[in-house]
Amino acid sequence: MAQETPNHTQTVAGWAAYDSSGKIDPFIFKRRENGVNDVTIEILYCGICHTDLHFATNDWGITMYPCVPGHEITGVVVKVGSNVRKFSVGDRVGIGYLAASCLKCEYCASSQENYCDQLQPTYNGVFWDGSITYGGYSKMIVADHRYVVRIPDSLPMDSAAPLLCAGITVFTPFKDNQLLNSPRKKIGIVGLGGLGHVAVKFGKAFGHHVTVISTSLSKEAEAKQRLGADEFIISTSADQMKAARRSLDFILDTVSAKHSLGPVLELLKVNGILTIVGAPDAPLDLPALPLILGKRTVKGSTTGGILETQEMMDLCGKHNITSDIETVTPDQINHAMDRLARNDVRYRFVIDIAGKTSN
Amino acid sequence: MAQETPNHTQTVAGWAAYDSSGKIDPFIFKRRENGVNDVTIEILYCGICHTDLHFATNDWGITMYPCVPGHEITGVVVKVGSNVRKFSVGDRVGIGYLAASCLKCEYCASSQENYCDQLQPTYNGVFWDGSITYGGYSKMIVADHRYVVRIPDSLPMDSAAPLLCAGITVFTPFKDNQLLNSPRKKIGIVGLGGLGHVAVKFGKAFGHHVTVISTSLSKEAEAKQRLGADEFIISTSADQMKAARRSLDFILDTVSAKHSLGPVLELLKVNGILTIVGAPDAPLDLPALPLILGKRTVKGSTTGGILETQEMMDLCGKHNITSDIETVTPDQINHAMDRLARNDVRYRFVIDIAGKTSN
Repeated sequence: MAQETPNHTQTVAGWAAYDSSGKIDPFIFKRRENGVNDVTIEILYCGICHTDLHFATNDWGITMYPCVPGHEITGVVVKVGSNVRKFSVGDRVGIGYLAASCLKCEYCASSQENYCDQLQPTYNGVFWDGSITYGGYSKMIVADHRYVVRIPDSLPMDSAAPLLCAGITVFTPFKDNQLLNSPRKKIGIVGLGGLGHVAVKFGKAFGHHVTVISTSLSKEAEAKQRLGADEFIISTSADQMKAARRSLDFILDTVSAKHSLGPVLELLKVNGILTIVGAPDAPLDLPALPLILGKRTVKGSTTGGILETQEMMDLCGKHNITSDIETVTPDQINHAMDRLARNDVRYRFVIDIAGKTSN
Repeated sequence: MAQETPNHTQTVAGWAAYDSSGKIDPFIFKRRENGVNDVTIEILYCGICHTDLHFATNDWGITMYPCVPGHEITGVVVKVGSNVRKFSVGDRVGIGYLAASCLKCEYCASSQENYCDQLQPTYNGVFWDGSITYGGYSKMIVADHRYVVRIPDSLPMDSAAPLLCAGITVFTPFKDNQLLNSPRKKIGIVGLGGLGHVAVKFGKAFGHHVTVISTSLSKEAEAKQRLGADEFIISTSADQMKAARRSLDFILDTVSAKHSLGPVLELLKVNGILTIVGAPDAPLDLPALPLILGKRTVKGSTTGGILETQEMMDLCGKHNITSDIETVTPDQINHAMDRLARNDVRYRFVIDIAGKTSN
């Protein structure tokens, strides 16, 4: 796998992890010319996803250094390939997890590109030309227009950035479980972080009764007052968990640390559905009895296809949903990542790549 | 909780476990008079379910001794209460897991009595009159007619008995996942025991391509030649498991020992469904990645409601589906249980309670 290939003629300034220390430093590299299906995007903002931490420090043993993280990218189109009809120079756009997929399989055909066997991610992937993909911690990116979405004019570009990963990750379960247009369901959100807080906003925007389940008592006020949650349960309180037994139709579990699904499953009604979007390193504990005695369902879901990402963006524009963010400058990335590792962020760091935000 | 109550006037001969040794010995006890909603049934056969072993030896710490196991009961109606229109003396009937439920909740209203919060099982439960329920290891039983099903004339009473638990347990997932009338799905059955072998029969009867997944190479010939399975995979063979990756629409996991669901999930296509009907004592390992990266689903299911039990029985009558059994006399119960504990049975022991079978 090459770092770049002969058609990589454009010099870009970015920020990369060079080794498993995970320290992010400036990195000058090349990107491909703008091809017939590509758009070139001046990057304005890039969210810092928890996944970026894992890749920077090679937690999963698959990092190709130097690694330019970032898959929550917003920016402005500055060049358009000859095959591209959908975008024009000046358009406000976003890029998420996907850089390429086969475009031929049944999943690509149904815009479930995220489940294509040959998908390549926005960073730490291998593009068709053999080059390693570099993500959004950089000034500019060249992207196949089929993986680019439009950002509604009503949304700020900084707080919209995390929608490209955190947002779509929690939106898809709402869509898949028929929760967009069937209000007044009782839903639970486990974990109030980068993903969970957006999920609460979706739940309320779509008309549901939302219960936040968290280990942290300090989050009750935030959940209810800032995000509009209806109920709050401390998951370490056996009494509170017992009182809520068999009360919820649907639960979205956003926790990325290993935990038992048993207590969470007990909160579901018979036939209730629990969707997991976190990815703990160690297997989750799934006790059989709460699953089988309540005929419950555990589903997995990861990011979303391009059509549903655009659908989410449009709904966010309509309902004024963005991520709550803290903006950082590129030279604050390491500090932000240290804080993120301690879950010390409300609720997402976004890098001001182009220096558009005055701090 | 009383062993029996004043209206318990009928003396019955049965077989019970007296303590956690699990040894089954004769037991003379009383059953209630036949009430207005009851039928009294002369028991002909009773299957030995793995659950009986757990209760006999108090594995779950909830056994009330003496414990008369048995919830795979077939017999003939000998008395009918004044409210009962559905059954007449002489009818061939069966009783499964359920002895009572509230008959008022949403689950009872939709014949999902098996998920009623107040359900009482056929044995080791507490009936409305305060008496402990005794199961089918006995000559006679009094049952509320609302939990009794009819056995089709085409089915033998001995090999039909395990359908009341093993059969309905694996039938419900077929029904819930729209597999009764949508043939040519690729389905997998994990584990070829009392439950799994009936599941293979259902899969073939409903027109599917059936793959058996087992740890035991010796079961390949049985699976294919005796039960008509199309494919066989040794789950300990990484090569075979890899070759079958993303190939199945639906998998039914009947294994009651702790195991990881990861390798099984990998066999499913994107959006594929795994239903668990076994209940290992320890939590199952559920690795998040094969779940979320394939947008897969893990469901639980336990036994079935009365309407679907009757539907299953009728379909078994139509397709000539019964359990493969070994018949034992009551004095062979302990020996049978010892063999069952070692999984040494093809595929279900059935007790010839009334001595109708000549051995």
